[in-house]
Amino acid sequence: MKGTVALSTSQPNILIYDPNQARAYADLLRRHGYHFVFSASTRAEAKNLLPNAEVLLCWKFPVELFSECDVTALQWVQSMGAGVNDLVEYVPKHATLTRVVDQFGGQIAEYVFAYLLYLAQDIDRFRQRQTQKAWEPQAPGYLAHRTLGVAGLGSIGQEVVRKARSFDMNVYGLSFTGTRADRVDRHYFPDMWSEFVRNLDYLVLTLPLTKETQAVINRNILQSMKPESVIVNVGRGPLIVEADLVELMRAGHIRAAVLDVFEKEPLSTDSPLWSMPNVYVTPHIAAPSVPSSVGIFLLDNLHRYVARQGLLGVVNLELGY
Amino acid sequence: MKGTVALSTSQPNILIYDPNQARAYADLLRRHGYHFVFSASTRAEAKNLLPNAEVLLCWKFPVELFSECDVTALQWVQSMGAGVNDLVEYVPKHATLTRVVDQFGGQIAEYVFAYLLYLAQDIDRFRQRQTQKAWEPQAPGYLAHRTLGVAGLGSIGQEVVRKARSFDMNVYGLSFTGTRADRVDRHYFPDMWSEFVRNLDYLVLTLPLTKETQAVINRNILQSMKPESVIVNVGRGPLIVEADLVELMRAGHIRAAVLDVFEKEPLSTDSPLWSMPNVYVTPHIAAPSVPSSVGIFLLDNLHRYVARQGLLGVVNLELGY
Repeated sequence: MKGTVALSTSQPNILIYDPNQARAYADLLRRHGYHFVFSASTRAEAKNLLPNAEVLLCWKFPVELFSECDVTALQWVQSMGAGVNDLVEYVPKHATLTRVVDQFGGQIAEYVFAYLLYLAQDIDRFRQRQTQKAWEPQAPGYLAHRTLGVAGLGSIGQEVVRKARSFDMNVYGLSFTGTRADRVDRHYFPDMWSEFVRNLDYLVLTLPLTKETQAVINRNILQSMKPESVIVNVGRGPLIVEADLVELMRAGHIRAAVLDVFEKEPLSTDSPLWSMPNVYVTPHIAAPSVPSSVGIFLLDNLHRYVARQGLLGVVNLELGY
Repeated sequence: MKGTVALSTSQPNILIYDPNQARAYADLLRRHGYHFVFSASTRAEAKNLLPNAEVLLCWKFPVELFSECDVTALQWVQSMGAGVNDLVEYVPKHATLTRVVDQFGGQIAEYVFAYLLYLAQDIDRFRQRQTQKAWEPQAPGYLAHRTLGVAGLGSIGQEVVRKARSFDMNVYGLSFTGTRADRVDRHYFPDMWSEFVRNLDYLVLTLPLTKETQAVINRNILQSMKPESVIVNVGRGPLIVEADLVELMRAGHIRAAVLDVFEKEPLSTDSPLWSMPNVYVTPHIAAPSVPSSVGIFLLDNLHRYVARQGLLGVVNLELGY
């Protein structure tokens, strides 16, 4: 019956949930011809509107509503981010869960290379010297011919690989499926983490958070890394055991850590990460889920839904991404 | 007769002049089998040794020695840098002048993109917020789909173009010959400076210093640029009229200037550039002329000289590069 409903109308009921930007997304959809668009920015609003929704587009959704409400009408849940670890166990089994793919790669890779180059060029030092009006030429470092490891070769990891090529880096990759092993100079599977990290100058984490990836960067793996290597996490915080990272970095291991994601967000003011000299903390901004960047993807996927074409970014609930 | 000498021996007298690194270069050459290698790091040493030199490899050479000494034996002068504006008028006409080519592109392009990404990602702001333990997500800016103009499409400019492509930028170029116009989305000749800069978000100068390029970035051209555009100079300082740049930036025109080269170097402590908030001063380090990077080129060109093959980087004395 629900199939019939979706077929008989090209205008599904769409609920948009986003604590900050629900209206902006709703306006975008309306401008593109969708009439039955409802926005919610609070739990109470969402609880009211969810039972009538056939499509849910959401960001930081209060997932307990999936069991509290009657969600039999719900056909499709679209996460407005690339990661769905907060949704994957709660979305009703009869609905399709999708995530944003192929949208964040360029943005995240710009973040990654901004910080890799910032560190290599030692911009901080030259900024300091400028305040002293000190003309002290000293050669910076370079990315060329250094070795970059990318853990996760999805759409984000691939974009990191692509830019690394233009900087003439050696590029190693680790992935669970190995389907894109041909894009990197050496490919490793998850049973080879130690071998993977051993020769890296830079390790970039773009992995999703799953049971298999949680805490993969622990004391053991960190100790396998070169003391002067740099780690960048743009995946999910719990990939790294923060206590292990802090302990090893305090002992002088690992040259720098660039962290956009954390075990708990916002990062607690108690966290030692804030004030460690070689730790670069950013507040989960490497890939902002904003209408301008995510909107194109949502509109594309909505069009596919209405036209009954295959959706993009369908999550495999077993794998969790 | 001199030709006969060069033919009869594969071991020319080589003088290396460099105020700081002459010995390091000399050691490098000796390790590669050259026996008649002489190093000078002062004017007096150079004056003693120059009359016997068939080959001069030099950096910041006291050019008056070309007229003070008998240089009839001198066949070849190799600049250890990419720019030869300090040499081109002084090297004796019977000698060949060469410059380093194809060595600095990667390094200079890393410098350029380090600063472009540093500004786009607003790393300074996030570093500030980290000191305050402030979790304040705010989307950074991006290079993708912005327009980069490269003035000068030699080996350095081409490398900037290549990396800009990997960041999905629109790339415009200005060059005197137009031989590489096909590498950019739009190409301009020097009679179209105003049109070239008008729509740029980023202007990168990789031009040599010649009579034609001196002071090309003057009040008129700066005023043609978008107020929020960024200018990066990795060519030579006198391409820009510094007084005009200072005046216009003080009036809020031009978002940032990243300057590695200056009208006079070292930059005087009197210069207002040091303390302007949107000016980034580095002490001519974008392409360090150090043995590790330049040595490979010198050895290659020396081998060509001895083998009587065509030298790389021969300077056209009319064009000045």
